[in-house]
Amino acid sequence: MTFSMDIIETDGNARTGVINTARGEIRTPAFMPVGTAATVKAMKPETVRETGADILLGNTYHLMLRPTAERIAKLGGLHKFMNWSRPILTDSGGFQVMSLAKLRKITEEGVSFQSHIDGSKHMLSPERSMEIQRLLGSNIVMAFDECTPYPASEKETEDSMLLSMRWAKRSYDAFHDGSEHAQMNALFGIVQGGVFEKLRHHSAEALKEIDFNGYAIGGLAVGEGQDVMFEVLDYTMPVMPKSKPRYLMGVGKPDDIVGAVERGIDMFDCVMPSRSGRTGQAFTRRGTINMKNSRHIDDPRTIDEQCRCSACSQYSRAYVSHLIRSGEILGPMLLTEHNLTYYQDLMAGLRDAISRKSLGGFVKDFHETRAEGDIAPIT
Amino acid sequence: MTFSMDIIETDGNARTGVINTARGEIRTPAFMPVGTAATVKAMKPETVRETGADILLGNTYHLMLRPTAERIAKLGGLHKFMNWSRPILTDSGGFQVMSLAKLRKITEEGVSFQSHIDGSKHMLSPERSMEIQRLLGSNIVMAFDECTPYPASEKETEDSMLLSMRWAKRSYDAFHDGSEHAQMNALFGIVQGGVFEKLRHHSAEALKEIDFNGYAIGGLAVGEGQDVMFEVLDYTMPVMPKSKPRYLMGVGKPDDIVGAVERGIDMFDCVMPSRSGRTGQAFTRRGTINMKNSRHIDDPRTIDEQCRCSACSQYSRAYVSHLIRSGEILGPMLLTEHNLTYYQDLMAGLRDAISRKSLGGFVKDFHETRAEGDIAPIT
Repeated sequence: MTFSMDIIETDGNARTGVINTARGEIRTPAFMPVGTAATVKAMKPETVRETGADILLGNTYHLMLRPTAERIAKLGGLHKFMNWSRPILTDSGGFQVMSLAKLRKITEEGVSFQSHIDGSKHMLSPERSMEIQRLLGSNIVMAFDECTPYPASEKETEDSMLLSMRWAKRSYDAFHDGSEHAQMNALFGIVQGGVFEKLRHHSAEALKEIDFNGYAIGGLAVGEGQDVMFEVLDYTMPVMPKSKPRYLMGVGKPDDIVGAVERGIDMFDCVMPSRSGRTGQAFTRRGTINMKNSRHIDDPRTIDEQCRCSACSQYSRAYVSHLIRSGEILGPMLLTEHNLTYYQDLMAGLRDAISRKSLGGFVKDFHETRAEGDIAPIT
Repeated sequence: MTFSMDIIETDGNARTGVINTARGEIRTPAFMPVGTAATVKAMKPETVRETGADILLGNTYHLMLRPTAERIAKLGGLHKFMNWSRPILTDSGGFQVMSLAKLRKITEEGVSFQSHIDGSKHMLSPERSMEIQRLLGSNIVMAFDECTPYPASEKETEDSMLLSMRWAKRSYDAFHDGSEHAQMNALFGIVQGGVFEKLRHHSAEALKEIDFNGYAIGGLAVGEGQDVMFEVLDYTMPVMPKSKPRYLMGVGKPDDIVGAVERGIDMFDCVMPSRSGRTGQAFTRRGTINMKNSRHIDDPRTIDEQCRCSACSQYSRAYVSHLIRSGEILGPMLLTEHNLTYYQDLMAGLRDAISRKSLGGFVKDFHETRAEGDIAPIT
């Protein structure tokens, strides 16, 4: 087994380290850009790497429907297909089958559904999800779970969590099929239980019993708000194994990430930096700005004067604003690159602060700079 | 005056050389990618340069409406605005005001019209076109002319051509305003006259009388077909000055370019390689292929095995086909890069063949390879 985690330094509950995989190292805390359909939208993979990403996320649900996992396997796997040689984590399909597919039906066996693309009929189960993620050549495979709706009663949440735990065991058994893929790569379990401490604890204990290579927290960032999310982390993190990676799924905004790192999370993924890049939103050290706003159209300054990305080193706000207003593809290209660079630089800053045991000061600066707000328009 | 042309070698009517500008050299025959709204769509300028482009084309009509020439001037000019330091040729707006604007009215003074973007009212005249192209910082300014409709009678074509010749003189007078811009950069006249030899000769003589830095042929590639276009070139080229650049506007398909180079053309522009990249069409040495076609979805081979572009060196047809089918932005990014590389490699091949006085063999190979057709699908 080539998968392991070295924790290099801690500061309070936060930790920085390295996850070793068959495809290379992941520096933690790590942010994983989302490459839904075998591409981080509007980005070449070499540019994604230049932003500082060590690992990408791929989506089982999207890829199983188009171009299909079998086709990708025949073409040499997802890494080769999309020209990304470093680690890839794949989700299990559990979340997106609930949010995107049509005519879903959940049974003990799994989820049957129709494709949102062409209406074709499919089935996802722990066994099928493991098979797809193996065909893709995923380096970090996620157990198949049910995405608990939010809000949900304690009873609904418990039933859903217990189903996910049975599916977690089936995922484990299906993943460990004696294949080289299973020997070389990792399987993560997903702690569910909504906003109920007792259920989160039950879920974490059930997963530890099975023994995964890493542990994710699922079912957050679904509308519960940052306070509730941090509260769930506060009572869930103490029961998560310290020696293994901890991954907060689908999170989040920059301040969500900072707060979660303070609470001991190692890995994140979110569509926000890439999706925002396509809608004209830019993340900066002074907060989020809307490049569609007319205040930018004459501004010769860069989006974020401290940013090293090619958008900020070569273009003005006026130009990026022109591109976005004109619907030019280069607009999303530059803004996505900028936003992903912002996220990766935030992660690098967090890693550096933890390694110097100065996370408190870093977080204080982070919030103070954001509170200053965007630079004033040129008059 | 820093603008000049050195003809290095000829082969029949074809020539290869270098156009010297204030922003650097242009190797001829040259293909100019179209950067309509201050961007070659879906391309970073450094990638455009990597394809082999020495010069870009910018559109007066689009830029005057958004973000406006005055705004670009205030921000330091078009080169700085779009991060392209090499030569830029700007069209006069004459063609696009006729094809895109609403409620056009042509008078001796110029063309009044409404913006296709927001309906705002504008005027383009020789004087205003020269002012806009100066504000943009264009290195090769095009005289303002009327785009003669096609088909048109000889009388209509003559009236239109004569108006364009009066506007050419006004363009010349307005361009030569004693500014540093006029001293450092070039003004090209545009030969009109449709498909009538007598009118083309009249137009060319009228422009030579005024004395431009280069001469374009306008009003072709508007539906007349390749045979007619080549016929017009056959009788127009002999009356075009040999010592100055000759530019065939808006052309064209690869075989149009090859035939026009054989007839002595030095410069080309066309949206085809970039527009096709956004609709899934790929140019290859074996002809044009449609990446939406299902024959490509399992094909591990590259689009064109002889192509050096990053799409062809890093991705399969299967992947590019997946991107195009999925509507992913990376699809147009890769295909545009490929198509522009194909065009630039074609120009490099033509330049090399002329310099070795072996254009005939190059053209024969070019047609024979295309006649072979695309590689057979993998079965």
